[in-house]
Parts: sequence; structure tokens; C-alpha cells
Amino acid sequence: MAPAQELQHDQQAPPRSDEAPYKSRVTVVGSGNWGSVASKLIASNTLRLTSFHDEVRMWVYEEILPSGEKLTEVINRTNENVKYLPGIKLGRNVVADPDLENAVKDANMLVFVTPHQFMEGICRRLVGKVRGDVEAISLIKGMEVKMEGPCMISTLISQQLGLNCCVLMGANIANEIAVEKFSEATVGYRVNREIAEKWVQLFSTPYFIVTAVQDVEGVELCGTLKNVVAIAAGFVDGLEMGNNTKAAIMRIGLREMKAFSKLLFSSVKDTTFFESCGVADLITTCLGGRNRKVAEAFAKNGGKRSFDELEAEMLQGQKLQGVSTAKEVYEVLSHRGWLDLFPLFATVHEISIGRLPPSAIVEHSERKPKFSLADGSI
Amino acid sequence: MAPAQELQHDQQAPPRSDEAPYKSRVTVVGSGNWGSVASKLIASNTLRLTSFHDEVRMWVYEEILPSGEKLTEVINRTNENVKYLPGIKLGRNVVADPDLENAVKDANMLVFVTPHQFMEGICRRLVGKVRGDVEAISLIKGMEVKMEGPCMISTLISQQLGLNCCVLMGANIANEIAVEKFSEATVGYRVNREIAEKWVQLFSTPYFIVTAVQDVEGVELCGTLKNVVAIAAGFVDGLEMGNNTKAAIMRIGLREMKAFSKLLFSSVKDTTFFESCGVADLITTCLGGRNRKVAEAFAKNGGKRSFDELEAEMLQGQKLQGVSTAKEVYEVLSHRGWLDLFPLFATVHEISIGRLPPSAIVEHSERKPKFSLADGSI
Repeated sequence: MAPAQELQHDQQAPPRSDEAPYKSRVTVVGSGNWGSVASKLIASNTLRLTSFHDEVRMWVYEEILPSGEKLTEVINRTNENVKYLPGIKLGRNVVADPDLENAVKDANMLVFVTPHQFMEGICRRLVGKVRGDVEAISLIKGMEVKMEGPCMISTLISQQLGLNCCVLMGANIANEIAVEKFSEATVGYRVNREIAEKWVQLFSTPYFIVTAVQDVEGVELCGTLKNVVAIAAGFVDGLEMGNNTKAAIMRIGLREMKAFSKLLFSSVKDTTFFESCGVADLITTCLGGRNRKVAEAFAKNGGKRSFDELEAEMLQGQKLQGVSTAKEVYEVLSHRGWLDLFPLFATVHEISIGRLPPSAIVEHSERKPKFSLADGSI
Repeated sequence: MAPAQELQHDQQAPPRSDEAPYKSRVTVVGSGNWGSVASKLIASNTLRLTSFHDEVRMWVYEEILPSGEKLTEVINRTNENVKYLPGIKLGRNVVADPDLENAVKDANMLVFVTPHQFMEGICRRLVGKVRGDVEAISLIKGMEVKMEGPCMISTLISQQLGLNCCVLMGANIANEIAVEKFSEATVGYRVNREIAEKWVQLFSTPYFIVTAVQDVEGVELCGTLKNVVAIAAGFVDGLEMGNNTKAAIMRIGLREMKAFSKLLFSSVKDTTFFESCGVADLITTCLGGRNRKVAEAFAKNGGKRSFDELEAEMLQGQKLQGVSTAKEVYEVLSHRGWLDLFPLFATVHEISIGRLPPSAIVEHSERKPKFSLADGSI
């Protein structure tokens, strides 16, 4: 493999003279647990497919390891992300690059997979620094839901960088995919089916099956809203109410995810919720996952210990997306007068702030919202 | 409560002179675990609602208990089905009746909830013995799938007795509902919304939420086909493949349930699979349930011990519906040339008869069938 140094260019001049003009160059922006697995998936395909340049550039937020070495240097020497995905070879064609601007400048395919709170800053730094023909995809779950509606990460990327942005979501526990266990994912795209198929090609492996659907908002909203349902499922687990009740709460949650998405974006399709990003990701998240786990502990304690306290104890400073998303969704519901339509979403927030006891999750979710009349309108 | 004796009539003469003409009379045909819970739910509502006669007649296949007493006598004395639902009071207005013809003759609402293999015989005995204005509902999961297509229990009842038959399905573990844990169910009806609403009224309680959908075949097929998916989920558990893979297999299973139902009955609606009978029952069945459990043991043994052997050991002589349904579905698929369209259904059968190893569940289910092209056609 060419050392990282040799692959740097002084100016934006793709494609290079020594490669076929149609070859795409891929850069992954982010190198955490999921970003490293995404790089591994992609790198196996760029080697195999003639329409892609072999090298996959991976932007790494530089860190000095306890050994005194730089993280990028260790990744490029050992071919492993020793900090975020130890024990897994990424592929020798993955090149870690600590320089964000350098990492993206030659790419015509950008994969965004950073914590969502960093995306605004990254986009600001990238304005004017990416190729004119670049296509993007976001793997980032957990956009912000503001009072007037959700601020989708794909929209943020599209608007700030003036490019087209797809999304990839699904039942994707990074460590399971890293060891090549079978799973699936969904690509959401807005208009261009051909571009979507190119992303499908780039990510698909025999153990990672990707399907494209023309519904970017539906796919992206699934990735965020399922965390609110996972909190509800955790309450049911903590109350030891059994599988029947848990399944009912997950189903009501899925219905509210669908109804909420369709009220916000009339383009959202029912069929999207049958894809990996919908029902499968919901199942994974409600079976395992930290949102479910901390909510279970919250209910076991009868709501007497706050989420903040339990998070600090159980997650080493990480924050639960489900609790903050529930708060943001609640604000949208209040603002639009929709609280009665979404009893489960509303109740999750009211329990999490201590206004209702955990047992309210079943007492309140059972209220029949207007759209349950099976008329198929929502 | 009036003793059972007093409630018997010499002839069909409903309504009785001492009751308002509009009052409905309900008989539950069956008194196993789920039949007893159904009687309890119904009995709480007939007492409360003026449009129903208080008494709920429950036909009991008579048995002599170890004590020497008759089961019906013990039920009527103690108000408990000591054999199939011990510890739960059914409601003092539930009257056990060992005489099938006597039990049904005054009823204008019949609830069928017996093991499905008894239904043909029961129907034969009831021809000409039910009221002309009678409405029926079937709670029986597990109809037979014959080569030319499924033989729906609701159709069997409709045709043999010349009456209209709805179905009630859902994520309904009887013992959890018996102790009044929150759950949901779906009523499927063919044409008459008013009748469906009457069934909804009869079954609904604050902890048991029932929704009606105009899709009797879709609802009934969900109840059968989910058992095939539960076998697949059990294989994944036995192979210890993790939640990601399990969620993916459940999702592919749900997709095949939907596609199979729609190919057989073009009237089947996508939205039905979002109801309790669809996604919620699938989740419950794939988390707990005996199909999942025995399939897990089968995979753990690498397929070296047959389902017959494991069933005998683990289920005390009970048979797994999932394995026989998978066989019947396979026959339909072969007969119609659909095997390639349903890789998961086909693979479950081929694993269960030893033609493929358990690990094939992921290797084969990943084959993309034609209808996964996200064109929404199926």
C-alpha cells in the first residue's frame, strides 16, 4: 500500500492521470466504532470493483495514545483502529488521515459518520473544500428535533455544502458487523436512483445486505425516533410486564414513528417502516442497546433516580439519545397541538422528567389516538 | 348467578321473554388456556354492557379430574378452570356446559377457540344447530396450508355453518392477559364494520386493546405464518448470531409473510402487518414461545437431533405448529413455482428436514427475492 504521504496532493485535480476517468474516490469522514466498520465494508468493495479507486481515505480526529503514538500512525501501521475497533483489520487500502481538508479534497464520494454534534462544525470547515461533483451519504443517527420540526443531518450537509446527500440506516450494531455477522441496512435517497445504487454497491457484502428506498426523510427519522421507543421498551422491562406488553409497546411506538414522520413529511412512505431502518432497527434497539438498558434501571428504581444520575453511573459520561430526542419530540408535539395524537412519545418524556411514574407507559399509551381508526389515512 | 341447569332450554327460542330483544347472547366454544382467558374478558364486558345478556356460556370438553369430579362441575362451583387456567376467576357469569349443542343453541355470537384440528369435527356437529342470525369469530391460530393454498379456519366455519366469521389474532400470551397485563389484539372482518365493532366491544378492556381491520385473510395468515419465522429466529438464537442478525431475519420473515399473503389474496393490506396481529405477534413469538425455543435447541445440536425427538423431549407430546406450517408453505411454494421468491420460508423447511444445516438460515435468506426491489408492488 502506498504510504499516506504519497497520496496527498497539492491541489484538487481529480481524476489523476494514472487512473481511468470513471473511477470514484471514497473518503470516510469519521473513524469511531461505526466509522471504522464502514471503512472496512467499503474497502473490501473498492478493491473488488473496478469503478472505484482502491484507496479509502478515512479522516481521523487525531489522538495521542497512552503509548505516546498518534492514532493515525498506529492505524496506518497496524491496519487496525486500536482505540475504537481493536482486533479488526480494516483492509490495507484504508488510509487514516488526520487532516480533514486533505482527506476530502480528491473524493467524489463522502461518507459522514461522526457524532452528530460535530457535524455543524465539520460542515463549516468543509465549505468550498470539496469537489464540485461530490456525492455524500450520512450514517449519522440522531439528528436534532427542533420545535418547528427535525433538523435532519442530511439536510444540514446538503445545505451547507451545496451537495446531494443520501442516508444509510438500519439494524447495525457495529461490533456484530465487524465480525461479519449477517445484517441489513437501508439507503434512503431523494431523486437519483443511480447514485443510490452506487452507494448500495459500495456498502454491500455477502453478510451486509443493503436496499435503497426513495425516502430520505423516512429512513433518517426511523434512525432517531426508534430511540424514544427503546426508552419505552426499557420501562416495560424494568416493570417486568412480559413479552406481550413489550411487543404491544414496540408496535405502538412503530405506529407513532410512522405517523409522526408522515405528518412532518408527506412524502414519507409506509413501506419504509418495513425496511431494515424501520422494524429491524427498532427490534435490535429494543432488545439490546443502552437506551433500553438505562430506562430499565430507571423503572426498576421507580423513577426515584434520575436519568442524569443513571447515565453517569452506567454510561461513563455518554448521554442517552432517547431521552433528549423524547424531549425534542415533545416540544414539536406541544408546539403543533399534537400531544393527544402521540400518547407513547408524550408519556416517555413525562416519565423521564418525573412528571409521571414509569407504570404510566402502559396506562397512557393505550389511549387510542385518532389515527388508529384503521382508515389507513396515516 | 343462576345455576347451569336453569339456563338450559328445551327449544331454540331466543330471545327469552324476560329480556330486551336486542340483547346478544355469547357462547365460547372451547375452554383451554386461551379459551378460558377469552371467556374472562368477555364476561367482564357482558356484565357491564346493556346490549349483551350477562351470561357467557362456555362449552367445555368434559374431563374427569384426578379428584373424580367433572371439570364443568368444578368450573361452575369454583369459577375457575382449575385444569387450564388455575388461580384465575373467570367471572361468576361464565357457565361451563359439557353439551356442545346445548351450549350454542341460544347464542347469536359464537367464539371459536379450540385446537384447530378439532374444528372440522365441531363444525360437522353444529350444522343446523345454530341460530339463523348467528355471528362467529375465530381465535384459532394455525389453519392448514394445503398445496393449493391455505385452508382458513374462518372459511371452514363460514362454509360449513353458512354464517359470517371474523377472526381475532394478536400478541396474546394467554397467561399474561389472564393477570391483566397490557396487550393488544386485532379483529379481522370481511364486510360488516358494525359487527366487527361489536366484537371489539365484547373483547376490549382497559388492559386489552382491540382494533378492527377489514382484512380477514391478512389477519388470519399473520397468526399462522409467524410461527415459521419464529423457527428461523430460534435457529439464529441457537447459532448465537446476535440481535442484529435476529432482527434482520425477523424483518425478512415479516416481508415474506406480507408477500405470501398478498400473492394468495390480493385483498390483503400492507397496513394489517403494522397491527398487533402482525409485527407485535411476530415479536412476542420470536422472543418467547415454544417454536423459537425448540428451534434454538435444534440449531445448538447442529441439526443432529430431529425436531420430532426434541419436541418429544421438550414439549411433552405437543407438536410444533411452525415446523408443520413450514412444510405446508413449502408445498405451496413448490406447487406454484415461488420457491425463489421466499428464501426464508423455503430454507426453514429445508433445515427442519435436515437437507440444509442450521447456518443456512442466514446464508440463504440473504438471497434477494425479486419483490425486494422496493418498487412497492408487493
